[in-house]
Amino acid sequence: MKNFIFFFIVFTTIIWSSNVECSSHLHPLDPITPSEINLVRTIILKAYPPETSKNSTIAFQYVGLDEPQKSTILSWKYSKTKTPPPARRIYVIARFKKQSLEIIVDLSRRSIVGSKVYKGHGYPMLNIQEQVAASVLPFSYGPFKESVKKRGLNISEVVCSDFSVGWFGEKKTKRLLKIKCYYTEGSVNLYMRPLEGVEATVDMDEMKIVDYKDRYVVPMPKAEGTEYRASKLKPPFGPILKDISLMQHAAPAFNLHGNTVSWANWEFHVGFDVRAGPIISLASVYDLEMQKYRQVLYRGFISELFVPYQDPTEDWYYTSYFDSGEFGFGQSASSLEPLTDCPSNAEFLDAFFADANGKPVKIPNAFCIFEKYAGDIMWRHTEVAIPNEVITEVRPDVTLVVRMVSTVGNYDYIIDWEFKPSGSIKVGVGLTGILEIKAGTYTNTEEVKEDIYGTLLADYTIGTYHDHFLTYYLDLDIDGEHNSFVKNTLETARVKDRKIPRKSYWTVVSETAKTEADAKIKLGLKPLELAVVNPNKKTKPGNKIGYGLIPGSVSHPLMLSDDFQQIRAAFTNYNVWVTPYNKSEKWAGGLFVDRSRGDDTIATWTQRNREIENKDIVLWYTMGFHHVPSQEDFPIMPTLTSGFELRPTNFFERNPVLKTKSPEPAHWSNCTK
Amino acid sequence: MKNFIFFFIVFTTIIWSSNVECSSHLHPLDPITPSEINLVRTIILKAYPPETSKNSTIAFQYVGLDEPQKSTILSWKYSKTKTPPPARRIYVIARFKKQSLEIIVDLSRRSIVGSKVYKGHGYPMLNIQEQVAASVLPFSYGPFKESVKKRGLNISEVVCSDFSVGWFGEKKTKRLLKIKCYYTEGSVNLYMRPLEGVEATVDMDEMKIVDYKDRYVVPMPKAEGTEYRASKLKPPFGPILKDISLMQHAAPAFNLHGNTVSWANWEFHVGFDVRAGPIISLASVYDLEMQKYRQVLYRGFISELFVPYQDPTEDWYYTSYFDSGEFGFGQSASSLEPLTDCPSNAEFLDAFFADANGKPVKIPNAFCIFEKYAGDIMWRHTEVAIPNEVITEVRPDVTLVVRMVSTVGNYDYIIDWEFKPSGSIKVGVGLTGILEIKAGTYTNTEEVKEDIYGTLLADYTIGTYHDHFLTYYLDLDIDGEHNSFVKNTLETARVKDRKIPRKSYWTVVSETAKTEADAKIKLGLKPLELAVVNPNKKTKPGNKIGYGLIPGSVSHPLMLSDDFQQIRAAFTNYNVWVTPYNKSEKWAGGLFVDRSRGDDTIATWTQRNREIENKDIVLWYTMGFHHVPSQEDFPIMPTLTSGFELRPTNFFERNPVLKTKSPEPAHWSNCTK
Repeated sequence: MKNFIFFFIVFTTIIWSSNVECSSHLHPLDPITPSEINLVRTIILKAYPPETSKNSTIAFQYVGLDEPQKSTILSWKYSKTKTPPPARRIYVIARFKKQSLEIIVDLSRRSIVGSKVYKGHGYPMLNIQEQVAASVLPFSYGPFKESVKKRGLNISEVVCSDFSVGWFGEKKTKRLLKIKCYYTEGSVNLYMRPLEGVEATVDMDEMKIVDYKDRYVVPMPKAEGTEYRASKLKPPFGPILKDISLMQHAAPAFNLHGNTVSWANWEFHVGFDVRAGPIISLASVYDLEMQKYRQVLYRGFISELFVPYQDPTEDWYYTSYFDSGEFGFGQSASSLEPLTDCPSNAEFLDAFFADANGKPVKIPNAFCIFEKYAGDIMWRHTEVAIPNEVITEVRPDVTLVVRMVSTVGNYDYIIDWEFKPSGSIKVGVGLTGILEIKAGTYTNTEEVKEDIYGTLLADYTIGTYHDHFLTYYLDLDIDGEHNSFVKNTLETARVKDRKIPRKSYWTVVSETAKTEADAKIKLGLKPLELAVVNPNKKTKPGNKIGYGLIPGSVSHPLMLSDDFQQIRAAFTNYNVWVTPYNKSEKWAGGLFVDRSRGDDTIATWTQRNREIENKDIVLWYTMGFHHVPSQEDFPIMPTLTSGFELRPTNFFERNPVLKTKSPEPAHWSNCTK
Repeated sequence: MKNFIFFFIVFTTIIWSSNVECSSHLHPLDPITPSEINLVRTIILKAYPPETSKNSTIAFQYVGLDEPQKSTILSWKYSKTKTPPPARRIYVIARFKKQSLEIIVDLSRRSIVGSKVYKGHGYPMLNIQEQVAASVLPFSYGPFKESVKKRGLNISEVVCSDFSVGWFGEKKTKRLLKIKCYYTEGSVNLYMRPLEGVEATVDMDEMKIVDYKDRYVVPMPKAEGTEYRASKLKPPFGPILKDISLMQHAAPAFNLHGNTVSWANWEFHVGFDVRAGPIISLASVYDLEMQKYRQVLYRGFISELFVPYQDPTEDWYYTSYFDSGEFGFGQSASSLEPLTDCPSNAEFLDAFFADANGKPVKIPNAFCIFEKYAGDIMWRHTEVAIPNEVITEVRPDVTLVVRMVSTVGNYDYIIDWEFKPSGSIKVGVGLTGILEIKAGTYTNTEEVKEDIYGTLLADYTIGTYHDHFLTYYLDLDIDGEHNSFVKNTLETARVKDRKIPRKSYWTVVSETAKTEADAKIKLGLKPLELAVVNPNKKTKPGNKIGYGLIPGSVSHPLMLSDDFQQIRAAFTNYNVWVTPYNKSEKWAGGLFVDRSRGDDTIATWTQRNREIENKDIVLWYTMGFHHVPSQEDFPIMPTLTSGFELRPTNFFERNPVLKTKSPEPAHWSNCTK
């Protein structure tokens, strides 16, 4: 279906030859710059000029790097001679005349090199402008104004927000959003105060309300006790925390060359995508014995987030978000606050994305990078077995963290990529922000005689049960591209030797996954150790060179697998999947997720049951949280943390931090304490 | 069987009236002081004077606080008028004339107030002197000297260590230990270099070798590559870590009144026991709204550690340690190194225990306490839904850590109790130190045609598979002593309303455990949320006031449950048990664990199936690690961390850190950076 459009090439080259900046890129995976965004916009608006008739202005839904082939990147990266980076191509998804377009722009040629109309199910990521436009529609909609009036609310204190509607088996879908509204009088904590029962449905192509419901009136939860701004709270304050900082002699302790970070024994590239958020690429670890950097992670990012709510009633049943594919985890990044979001030794990076009009938007301080020392111990030992000698040898643990916070509506996700000198990559996720509340008629659980699908947190305030599933794309390249996936099962064995009075022990039964079917894993059922190994290389004692996956808290989806939203989120059915590398398989829930039907997820891709042994493979890992809200989550949630670790497992011949010296504690001279 | 001996009372009162110090104790749970240890020794040696015949000197195996009744402690603690702390009583286990004695000494009366001979199975904790005495026996044992000579080793470079022997169904047992030996020529990393095949059995009552085996000779693993002291390693060093510190204006940020710590909204007592190590008592959290401290944890400590190795061959099958009950987790505490074991803002506490002769031994810097700031976020939110207003409100997370490191032979356990202003208590365990190695004939896995029960880490060096199970005693008193244990199961439900296109959702099914049988839980089988609640108090909206248990990595024992060592370690059969509080039920594997038969474990106590609803209850939680060694663990292990969290769950009416202000970052004036 590709409809290549070549005629722009010559024209655009002439026009923009003065502001070429493509070749100035340090790295082919660098995020798109504002000038590149502007260039893309100009090129696309030439091809799709606005028409005076309604709805015919092209709208940018996704503008991202069309990554070069992996082989191209690797040969650029590892070439002995300095070669210019491969050409920059930008992949655009746009809405135009009620259709979804996929457009590829070649920046060096300054032209569209491919475009097609997407004919499949689902719709592209929502841009921010259209969400805002939809959210203000109720204010000029008579029945809504009536609803506000009926509730005795001041309409100037009402704000509305948009919700994706999912798919429930409809044969034909439109591009719809639901709008729900909140009250801000007396508190900015709007999520605590919904206009429950009121719901507008917006046709996004027409940008108008096509359905409206005012089902019932319940009391508006009080503003009292919901405020979270220190400036608005009244004494007493507490608990009182005293001054504390991470202190370094020379911050930053890492080097930033463009977007490439080098620190201690690590080197990696930090990218940004409007949909995925942070992308870590080409992470390599320096092997002191081999005296070279060795590949670990070609590319890692959050591919999708699935957040299903568990209230099946008429006005809540559809509530399930795909925070990446529907709302854009990258465009939801919040500017990080120095000293609170990140410690005083942090450095910050901005991020840019294209808005609905194709214009660049800056997110200042979207990333922070900092060296972390939490008082932890990297390794230690005290030896007292040798007469007349006590040996104590200790190394403190210092790590490097790359952080982004993405605030998708009410929830704030703290996303950390932490690099450890021991070779581990720890991925941390913190959940904080504000619960989604359903207003009810109850003030005490004693009045509740039915399932309210949540916890009563305060008067009329129900914190709805829900889950968070985060699916990570982890293209590990363990010491090279050709890898295998190994399941080591710890199995109980019976002792056969009659002389031995012991009856049993456990041992390791190792299986290498041949095809995708062998690598679908629900964690927690058996004691398993999982690793991606390089079957073409062995350590000196003959072990497979690998990295293990150390899961954090394990959760499984609890909805039925044939339920519509779960079909769309079928990528959460297993905690682990392994696929052969395929450039087009990036988004676990599919490219067009809004109103998708589950026909483009890992679950469908892996039905082909492709071979994955000694191939370039991708590990997909889903971390999950079931969230039963508690009163401590009201009116704002203390961070709930989880994560996982990629840990070298027979990757090094020995402990890679054996020869690390303890850093000196930082202290200044001539200080007034 | 208690054999009270009263006649000492008057006598001892006269003698020691001058050096009374008992009443000077700040807290009835304070650890035993050196003077108290001396006093106990004097009192006991009067009653059991040494005899000239062999083996009739009393040996102190355990000297610990005989805790006052909980009701006594609580009424002392919460009495409105200042009352003197209850009398100090010391509980002693000693070996005398090949018998185990239990003796209670009343320090204010300066007398023995109870003593009995223990007639049950098993033996007391090993003291350090007898372990040393056993470990040197081989050096005067001819056949051993022959074995060393046969291997061409220099006996002055051989050291030996002692191993508990367990129980394998023997009808009659003796107090035996096995001795294995290691080579230190060229490296202090002795555990890497066993004299494999050589094993002496020592009768501890006779203190002589009663059996000796030299089964086979395998190559001695090389010293090369096993050294871990920076001073002995050769360049290149790396990865290079730069100066970094936790910095505070005023350290410590906590108050230490005796052994009672108060910090932010927490108050708790830090104790020490020669067997258990650190004991946290009477932890209460200040409720800003109620303006009072509320009880959380009456007493928490590691009750037992079970470390079974998975090599079932003749010279390894018995290898399973009970690091608390056999070796004394407290007496194994290592002195913490400032700046490496703990950050620069840490304060240190010493610990004391009684040695074999009843004399006090000091462990300098056994504890450190420090405020921790790891760059984490306590809570945050960015709000963009309100027109013309961006709200960002963030609080950094600062916590307080109490740390002890216990080095039981080769392994170093980092034990952290971390208190969070949000009301959580996080318990962290780090495993580091040195693996236990079996020497084999292999240099490459290709030569291996059988199960070697471990990972080949280097030439002739097999890291044996093993587990670590740590069982925590958690006497939670959630806002009072009478508590219940609640299991909330997340269950899939079908949507019944035909109008709703969704098919399913999950909801919470809550069960309160009536008896001990209801509270035996293997985690991971079902999605569960566990909490200890106070059924007599409710929050304003009517929720049960509680604390949730958030498990870390979940592991189950893999040995058969009727295998002898597993019978002894039956307390690991479930991750969670709940018992009614019983002062005598402290040690999950029994009081006399060495060679125990499993007749005094949680598994046997709970067979009575006592009522636990609305009672003073104790939660027992077992954290487990299966350890398949990797080459990165050689020659010293990077720390592997796990833990669990006790998290307020409808304990507070709202987020208890809502009104916390961000601490200022610490900085000095007049500094030369």
